[in-house]
Amino acid sequence: MIRIFVTGGTFDKDYDELSGSLVFKDTHLPEMLRLGRSRVEVSIRTLMMIDSLEMTAADRLLIVEQCRHAVESRIIITHGTDTMIETAGVLATALGPESRKTIVLTGAMVPYAFGSSDGLFNLGSALSFVQILPPGAYVAMNGRYFLWDRVRKNRETGVFEAFVPSS
Amino acid sequence: MIRIFVTGGTFDKDYDELSGSLVFKDTHLPEMLRLGRSRVEVSIRTLMMIDSLEMTAADRLLIVEQCRHAVESRIIITHGTDTMIETAGVLATALGPESRKTIVLTGAMVPYAFGSSDGLFNLGSALSFVQILPPGAYVAMNGRYFLWDRVRKNRETGVFEAFVPSS
Amino acid sequence: MIRIFVTGGTFDKDYDELSGSLVFKDTHLPEMLRLGRSRVEVSIRTLMMIDSLEMTAADRLLIVEQCRHAVESRIIITHGTDTMIETAGVLATALGPESRKTIVLTGAMVPYAFGSSDGLFNLGSALSFVQILPPGAYVAMNGRYFLWDRVRKNRETGVFEAFVPSS
Amino acid sequence: MIRIFVTGGTFDKDYDELSGSLVFKDTHLPEMLRLGRSRVEVSIRTLMMIDSLEMTAADRLLIVEQCRHAVESRIIITHGTDTMIETAGVLATALGPESRKTIVLTGAMVPYAFGSSDGLFNLGSALSFVQILPPGAYVAMNGRYFLWDRVRKNRETGVFEAFVPSS
Repeated sequence: MIRIFVTGGTFDKDYDELSGSLVFKDTHLPEMLRLGRSRVEVSIRTLMMIDSLEMTAADRLLIVEQCRHAVESRIIITHGTDTMIETAGVLATALGPESRKTIVLTGAMVPYAFGSSDGLFNLGSALSFVQILPPGAYVAMNGRYFLWDRVRKNRETGVFEAFVPSS
Repeated sequence: MIRIFVTGGTFDKDYDELSGSLVFKDTHLPEMLRLGRSRVEVSIRTLMMIDSLEMTAADRLLIVEQCRHAVESRIIITHGTDTMIETAGVLATALGPESRKTIVLTGAMVPYAFGSSDGLFNLGSALSFVQILPPGAYVAMNGRYFLWDRVRKNRETGVFEAFVPSS
Repeated sequence: MIRIFVTGGTFDKDYDELSGSLVFKDTHLPEMLRLGRSRVEVSIRTLMMIDSLEMTAADRLLIVEQCRHAVESRIIITHGTDTMIETAGVLATALGPESRKTIVLTGAMVPYAFGSSDGLFNLGSALSFVQILPPGAYVAMNGRYFLWDRVRKNRETGVFEAFVPSS
Repeated sequence: MIRIFVTGGTFDKDYDELSGSLVFKDTHLPEMLRLGRSRVEVSIRTLMMIDSLEMTAADRLLIVEQCRHAVESRIIITHGTDTMIETAGVLATALGPESRKTIVLTGAMVPYAFGSSDGLFNLGSALSFVQILPPGAYVAMNGRYFLWDRVRKNRETGVFEAFVPSS
């Protein structure tokens, strides 16, 4: 059984036709898993529906607590891409090196509701990585996975890249 | 670098508007990787474009030879779902237990060109599994992976299921 | 109030993922009208769900009778493109020049369920033409309308073209 | 030959994946006409790419001048829905009752780039209405057409409704 925590992000943004703006309604996760004919047992819980630029320390604390107390040892978190790496770092630090949990954060560059979204690809990817990666906090984007402290988002291209921290 | 061999299957079926039937044109693989914003280095080669029910022993021999001689140790094969398991078995037997290659076969229940396709999800999944699974011949469908001799396709539901062979 | 008769055709073909073939399930008409935010009052009735190459004289008689007895004077018929013109001719002949009914036949070159379908465009077009064309039997395809005896389908391009019958 | 003037609006909004916001890039009109297999002869010109709430008197003057000097007597204007009726009124007043031009304004409630857009339906509808309506300035939305002074947009439902001005 895999736990999926939904926090919002581009992944789940919808177009509101009355206001003409992007908003959060319900998560698209169940619909996406149905489209992918996924038969992986998952339990989905929406923790928040926010843009990750607006995520506060209190929000991250809530995510940490949910991961800490989850009975599942394999967890996916859907998250806005702007601060996905920061949240992964908070999780890794809070849960510590002795944690037995494999946590994979993923998101999308384009909302799932748009025809050109990378969301379904990323969900298939994250769901696969989380099943076999060893414990740790990871980011899964662009078909790749990265440990939380070995990745950065290139703001000019929107691509997640491997990053070797200087000692 | 990951090698992708295209063999056709539902994945790549297109609708021909003059004949009103399903046909094979070019593979959708490059377009799908672009949509998924994949940054995994891949090398794509189309070996054939056929329905897997029409795949012959000679076709499978060609696939075996291509996998044997590929310089890449990680290989994805897109394949019709009807005989995907059979081809995985032929590969495992031909390459033998000493093979250092991780080969993941995937496909789709609905053509990518249809709005309701599972193809993009499956591609994200196969591309992720192939990066970390140990050597062997696998099937990646429904968000899961299976060793070639531990899976069967349920013909009534279209779902790939774990299968324990009787001794 | 506009009457819509559904007879099948490419318009409503679906992909059956177990058999891997194109089949008819339910019509997509209501879903398409919802997507188009249509507020035209319509009454939809499915007369048959068949490929128009398989339409028999008895089927056309049924369509004629339904049009004859409809209380609405404006009628859309969704129909396979292969014999759409033939059915329009049967209707025009059977109802006669004194008919007060505007009947517009439309269809699609690619099933609505495919991403690349012309169905939604054609439905918007037919629904508009039927509201203002004078009585007669018409074909609405490729953004244009044609009287039933002034059109032919170009089998090589799939395009409906104006046609002047030789005297 | 039909002239199409593009002015922007929801119709042509795109998602910018770096900024995470809705922006205007190129118009989708040619792609939409191709998808609809349209064979109506059209000439497309982009006049501006703006949200109709930001359309100024100078912008409307430009639209009027373009319509006045167009050699085509049948014109479609793609336009944001918020001030579409206002622009139609400016056109009707400026061109006067003696104008021989049929002008149809249309738009979309949801961007074409979104899966759930009404854009293709509306384009098929406007292109059909413009071919047969008598001279005048019209709005084509929700599958219907309205003379510019007989319509209002219901802000709560997003639907264009018939409106009888009090004398």
